[in-house]
Formats: sequence, structure tokens, C-alpha cells
Amino acid sequence: METTTRLILPEVIEALQTSPEDLVGLTEELHPADLADLAAALSPELAQKLLTVLPVDVGARLLENLDEEHRSKLFANLATKELDKAAALTDEMAHDDRADLYATLGEDLRAELLEALGEEESRDIRQLLSYPEDSAGAIMTTDFVALPAHVTTQEAINLIRQNASDKETIYQAYAVDQNGTLLGVVSLRDLVVSPADRTIAQIMNPNIVSAPVDVDQEEVARLIAKYDLLALPVVDRHHRIAGIITIDDAIDVVQEEATEDVQRMGGVEPLETPYLSTPFWHLIRKRAPWLVVLFVAGLATRNVLEHFSQSQIPGITKLLWFVPLIVASGGNSGSQSATLVIRALSLGRLESTDVRKVLLRELTVGLSLGFILGVVGLGSAAVWETTRFLPMVLSVGCAVVCVVTWGALVGAGVPLFMVRLGIDPAVASNPFISSLCDITGLILYMEVAQLFLG
Amino acid sequence: METTTRLILPEVIEALQTSPEDLVGLTEELHPADLADLAAALSPELAQKLLTVLPVDVGARLLENLDEEHRSKLFANLATKELDKAAALTDEMAHDDRADLYATLGEDLRAELLEALGEEESRDIRQLLSYPEDSAGAIMTTDFVALPAHVTTQEAINLIRQNASDKETIYQAYAVDQNGTLLGVVSLRDLVVSPADRTIAQIMNPNIVSAPVDVDQEEVARLIAKYDLLALPVVDRHHRIAGIITIDDAIDVVQEEATEDVQRMGGVEPLETPYLSTPFWHLIRKRAPWLVVLFVAGLATRNVLEHFSQSQIPGITKLLWFVPLIVASGGNSGSQSATLVIRALSLGRLESTDVRKVLLRELTVGLSLGFILGVVGLGSAAVWETTRFLPMVLSVGCAVVCVVTWGALVGAGVPLFMVRLGIDPAVASNPFISSLCDITGLILYMEVAQLFLG
Repeated sequence: METTTRLILPEVIEALQTSPEDLVGLTEELHPADLADLAAALSPELAQKLLTVLPVDVGARLLENLDEEHRSKLFANLATKELDKAAALTDEMAHDDRADLYATLGEDLRAELLEALGEEESRDIRQLLSYPEDSAGAIMTTDFVALPAHVTTQEAINLIRQNASDKETIYQAYAVDQNGTLLGVVSLRDLVVSPADRTIAQIMNPNIVSAPVDVDQEEVARLIAKYDLLALPVVDRHHRIAGIITIDDAIDVVQEEATEDVQRMGGVEPLETPYLSTPFWHLIRKRAPWLVVLFVAGLATRNVLEHFSQSQIPGITKLLWFVPLIVASGGNSGSQSATLVIRALSLGRLESTDVRKVLLRELTVGLSLGFILGVVGLGSAAVWETTRFLPMVLSVGCAVVCVVTWGALVGAGVPLFMVRLGIDPAVASNPFISSLCDITGLILYMEVAQLFLG
Repeated sequence: METTTRLILPEVIEALQTSPEDLVGLTEELHPADLADLAAALSPELAQKLLTVLPVDVGARLLENLDEEHRSKLFANLATKELDKAAALTDEMAHDDRADLYATLGEDLRAELLEALGEEESRDIRQLLSYPEDSAGAIMTTDFVALPAHVTTQEAINLIRQNASDKETIYQAYAVDQNGTLLGVVSLRDLVVSPADRTIAQIMNPNIVSAPVDVDQEEVARLIAKYDLLALPVVDRHHRIAGIITIDDAIDVVQEEATEDVQRMGGVEPLETPYLSTPFWHLIRKRAPWLVVLFVAGLATRNVLEHFSQSQIPGITKLLWFVPLIVASGGNSGSQSATLVIRALSLGRLESTDVRKVLLRELTVGLSLGFILGVVGLGSAAVWETTRFLPMVLSVGCAVVCVVTWGALVGAGVPLFMVRLGIDPAVASNPFISSLCDITGLILYMEVAQLFLG
């Protein structure tokens, strides 16, 4: 919440409790995003009161700007009490936001609301809800400006002027034929600077970047960012325009996808809600599976150590003291290379066919890093060791070189391999890579030790 | 690179080598972003030839869309050979992009180019280069539309029409007084729908969201995303408008900041260039320091194990076999909570004052996760253990519960603590948290074992 919003919060609470008519003055100059911050900070009762006191168009802007969790609760509460007011609010909302909102409601409430809405609006919402989650269709909005290709720029400006208030953006208009087929894009900039008697067909740009309704939202964000688009048109199978996705929604997608990547890489299944408002059991469900899988896999480390202990390597106990240090080095080196490779993959700066180049690179980088740590390891083993000096020191030093190099290779190789299998590479999380390196790192260490001490 | 671009690449190479006049036809319909993809895929010589063959305005768009690394090389090569052509290209470029480009050039070349440019342009570039890296001033552009507050909407539209081609965006115009003080914002939408005789002062929105020149780019991106702005005005100390930052640049900032977070969390200092084009020694410099620090800290694990081995716990060797498993569980649990907390902090959904709420949460979640793993650990110890059955099994089971809970607390607490110290919480990387948990986890394990077995 911005500081200015925080400062007026007490006054808003006071006004809501005593004289709601003062609210108009207090909130008139607030941006809807700040108004939404206020609503999120109020108790459910007061938030609902705020929503009913505000004019319908302001309330609709508030809902558009509220986070999903608060919005869903606030709106569902209102709708169960004042169905018509709730329907009127959604009538005013941006088409994409209201479809998102309806997606979070219970079936019965949703059906009642759709009943209370006009037929056109209710069909629009049903249509948007029918697209698969995270697809272009699911995040697009249907309140865009379509222009017949044969009208003049002056006629187009008049058309836009009449309908401006209902549209998500008027800066991009889409030229269509009588079937709704997308022919070209024309910006308000082009309309304003072109002579008034030119037709849309003459001034439009026919080289349109568009996306099919079923494409993933990540691709949508990539296209918008790459081509610096204010809005991306979404088309159906017959290349008819079905909706648009505006650049401000693309920012949200970029944030959301980055969050998912980060959480996967930390070994957590992506949360659907902000950390603090995620219920206890959800957190357990998102975290326990990976922990258990890695734990069960990690049981093998015990068996590796048991096996080598029984093979009578002299000084095995002393070797065991170095185990956490050596496996951690492999894991850290693996986390580094996995992080670099996964992020480069998700930014599209690396492709799974670059595998040879990447592995060669990690081999040389890993060897160099391994040597740096190996020297430190050698030195530290030398400080502590007295009896079997040379073999012990060499065992630790060489094991570090091997394990760090191996970690770098595993960390880079596993995500690339996952992409080839069609799995999200971010699943090769840091804990996953560390665990993989633990087992293999231990075997490497013990084999090296056996070589020098056995 | 898009598939269509990849398909015409051979033709473009052929045309560049034999008949450059064919290029105009080939590249005419390409979006500048695709043209930039082509330039990046060409050899340096052919890319330079492409840039000289294209009309200056198309070349400027190409440079605007090229990634920093290719752009800097291509432009520097051109400038050393054809200084005037290079200067002409920068004259046409967007003001923010050309300042970014000049920032990457050597001092001598930059001075020569500034000399070759007109005085106004060269002053503009010098001014933009004077702002600190990653500040609003450094990423803003100065080619925005400023309107005197007293002109009418009709006059304003005419003014915009005349200057549209030079401006980064014409969808937002800024009302200023004679000193350049920012008075309000007016959108092209408002201009188009308002009566022609209203003045800017009458229709502008005086509640402006703006940022000071020295604010961090992360805050800029946050404001643009929160208020769904197409452009954010940047003001100096006297509230005079100095430039604007457009939403498409905010997307780049969001991507860049997410990448930095991800890399820090993986234990790598953020790379300035894409992974594949980062030179070998840079990679070493970005990775070695953390690996060495963690390795040296990890040396303590050896001493912990030595210490407890000498305190004569019965069955110590068997206990040592479980060490990698138990420390990994603590590390994994810590990575999970660190990831969730760091991401929530960087999205602004968690504040450092939430520390008690977060720690309480991680205590209960950690205990639950610990019990789940503890039961598995207990079971597995039971399978292998025969001699000191109960104490061994209890040691391993209880140690897992303690270590996993402790990991969750450390992973959540350390990033919050870092924020309080004013350090980027992403520095509490997964490797860092794992290493911290390794040492403390071992002590916990050994203490628990001593309790049951000692």
C-alpha cells in the first residue's frame, strides 16, 4: 500500500462507520488501484459497505484492481445479499476481469448472476470461461475496437469516440471483414495523423502479429514483449478476431510465470495464492511431495556409505567426516549451473539443441571451479591430517574436483534433458539437483578414496 | 527467432552477398524485432552490410530491437568505419535506446560520435548518461509529448500530429507550465473524445503518478504495473518533467529483475549478459566467490563430526551413514521456505515486519513436514538396524523432525533478517541456506543421537 493511502485509511474507516456520504470526497481523487488497496485493508463488512456506497462505475474499477482472493470473497458476499447490485457491477467491469472473477465463484451463485445479467453479457462470460486455464482465450478480453475495413479514418474516429468508454483500449483498432476475419491493425496514432478521407483498408498494417485462442499465456507475453505491442489480437481457427490481450496483462503474466519458475526451482509446487494467504494444508501439499521423494531417494546415500565402510578402506571414519562438505560442494555447483540453464531456457535464450555447447562449457567451468575448491580442500585436509597424510589429502582434494565438475554437468544436463522430454525444466529444482549430486558425489568420493587409500 | 524469420535467412544472406537491392523487397514487411533477429544471426560483416543497405529509419528501428551485446558490437564496428552514417542512425533512434547504446561504447568513440551529432541531440545523450545505473533517469526517454496547459484539445491534436513521428508514445501527453513543471496528464483518448474547444487544463487529470529521476527501476516497474500506466512521467527535484518510461520498458525491467533474483537464489552473482554469451572468466568470477565462501564455512561440518566421533557415542559409524540424508532434508526444507519468502518479498506481498507471522507459520509447517519425513526416516532406520534398535531408530526419526523444522525456520528467517539489514534477501540463496542448515543440522542430529545413545 502507498503511504498516502495508508494515511487516509483511518478516515475512510471512520466515514464508513458514521457518515458514508463523506466517502465520496475522500475517495474521489484516488486511483482505482489505491481504492482497491483500501478495500483489501478493511474488514469484510466495511469493504462490502464501501463497495455498495461507491458509484457503480467506481466500484467496477475497484473490483478490477483488487487481488483475486479479496475480490472473490468480497464479491461473493455482496452477490449473496444484493444480487442485482452485483450483476450491475459486473456489467460495468472489463470483460477479462469479470470472467476471471466468475471463474472463482461457486456454481450456483454463478448461475444466478448469469441469469440476472443481460443475454449478451452472460454469453460473453460463458464464452471466456470455456477456454482452458492459462491459454490466450482465458486471459483475453472481448471489449476491443473492431472497424469495418471500408470506413474512412474520420468515420472510424467517430465510431471510436462513441464507444470509447466501453473499450479496454482504443489505441489499437482491428480491421475486419463482414465475417469478423482479422485483416489488419490500425493504431489511433495512424488514425489521427492520416487524412480524413482515407479508408481503414488503405492505412491499416496488414502484417499482424496474432495468437490462436489456445496458445499458452507465456507465448502471449513473449510476443507482446518482443514486438512491443500495446495489445495482441487473439484469433480463432478461421482467423476471426476473438479478443485482445493488452500489455498490462502481459506484465502480470511475466510476474506470474517468473514466480512459478522460482518456486519450482526452490522445490515447491507453484502456489496459486500469495504466501501469507495460502492455507496451512495447501502449503503442506505443495511442499511435502518433493521432500518425501527426495528423502526416499536420499536413503540410497546411507547404503552407499554402508557399502564402502564394509569394504575396509583404512581411515574410513575420518573420510566420513568430510562427507557433508564434499556433497554440499557438488550440490552448490549443480544449483548454480541448473539455475543459469533453467533461466536461460525460460527466457528463450537457450534451446535444448544447445546441449553440447552447454555441457562443454560446464565441463570447463566445473573443472576450474573444482580446482579452486580442490586446492582449498587439499589445504584443509593437510591441516588436520597427520597419520596417512598424502593419501588422505589427495583423496579429499581430488574428490572435490570430481564432485564439483560432476555437479556442474548434472545441473546443466538434467534441465536440458527434461526439455527434450517435454517436462518443465524448472522441475530440476535446486533440491532435486543437490540430491542427485549427493548420491553420485558420494560414490565418486568413495571411489577416489579407495584409489588412494585402498 | 520466429520460424518465418528463420526461413528467409538463407535468402537474406544470398542477397547480401550478391544483390543487396533485393533486400528491400525481402525485408520490407518484416517487423523491426524480426529484422533484429536476422541481424543477430548474420556474421558481423554481413550484419554491418545489412545495416548500411537499409534506409536510415529502418536501420534505427533494427538497432532499437537488437540485444545489447550484438548492438554494441555492430554499431561500434560501423562507427569506426562510417562515423557519419552511425551518427545519422542514432539521430533517428529512440532517445532511451541510443543512450543505452552510447553507454556501452568506448570513451573515444563516444566522444567522436557526440561531436558528429547536433548539439541538442548530443546534450540529450550526455544528460541521460549522467543518471546512475538502473535508476528511473537511466531508463527513461526524453522524446515525450509535452503540452502547454492553456492550449485547446484541437490545437493539442494538431501539435501531436506534427510531432508524432519523433515521439516514443503519443497516447499520453503531459501538461506543463512555462517552467516545464508537470501539471497533469492527458491521454489521446481524452483528447479524441473531448469537445475541440476545451483546454488541456480543463480535461487533464491532475492526480499524476510520477517517479523521481533517482528512484530504482524496480519501483518504476511496480508503479507501472500497479496503476496500469502506458507511461510513467519522471520528474526532477523541482517537479519538472524530465522524461517518461513506457510500459514496454517496464516488462523488460520485470524480466531482468526476476532473472537477477533467480540467479542470486541459485548462488550465482547476476550475469550482465545471456548465459551462452557470457565469457568463461566472467562465469568463474560470478560463481567461484560463493562456492569458496560456502566451502570454507562447510569445513566446520568436518569439525562437528570429529568432535562428536571423539565423544564416544556408541554406533557412531552407523550414525554417520545417515548424515547426508539428514542434512539434505534440512537443506531442502530450508530452500523451500527461503524461496517462498524471498519471492513474496520481491513481489511486495510480504514485509520485513511480518517476521513473527512468517516464523510462526514456518514453525508449524516445518514441524508437520518434519513429522512426515520423520516417520519415513524411522521406518527406514528400523529396516536396517538390528543391534541398538530403539535408540538408533529414535535418533534418526527425531533428528529428521528437528532438522526439517529448523531448516524451515532458517530459510524463512534469514531473508527477512537480511531485508532488515538493507541487504537484498535473494542473497540468502538456496546454497547459502543449505550450508547454514548443514552445520546446524549436524549439531542437532548429533545432540539428539547422544541423548538416545549416549
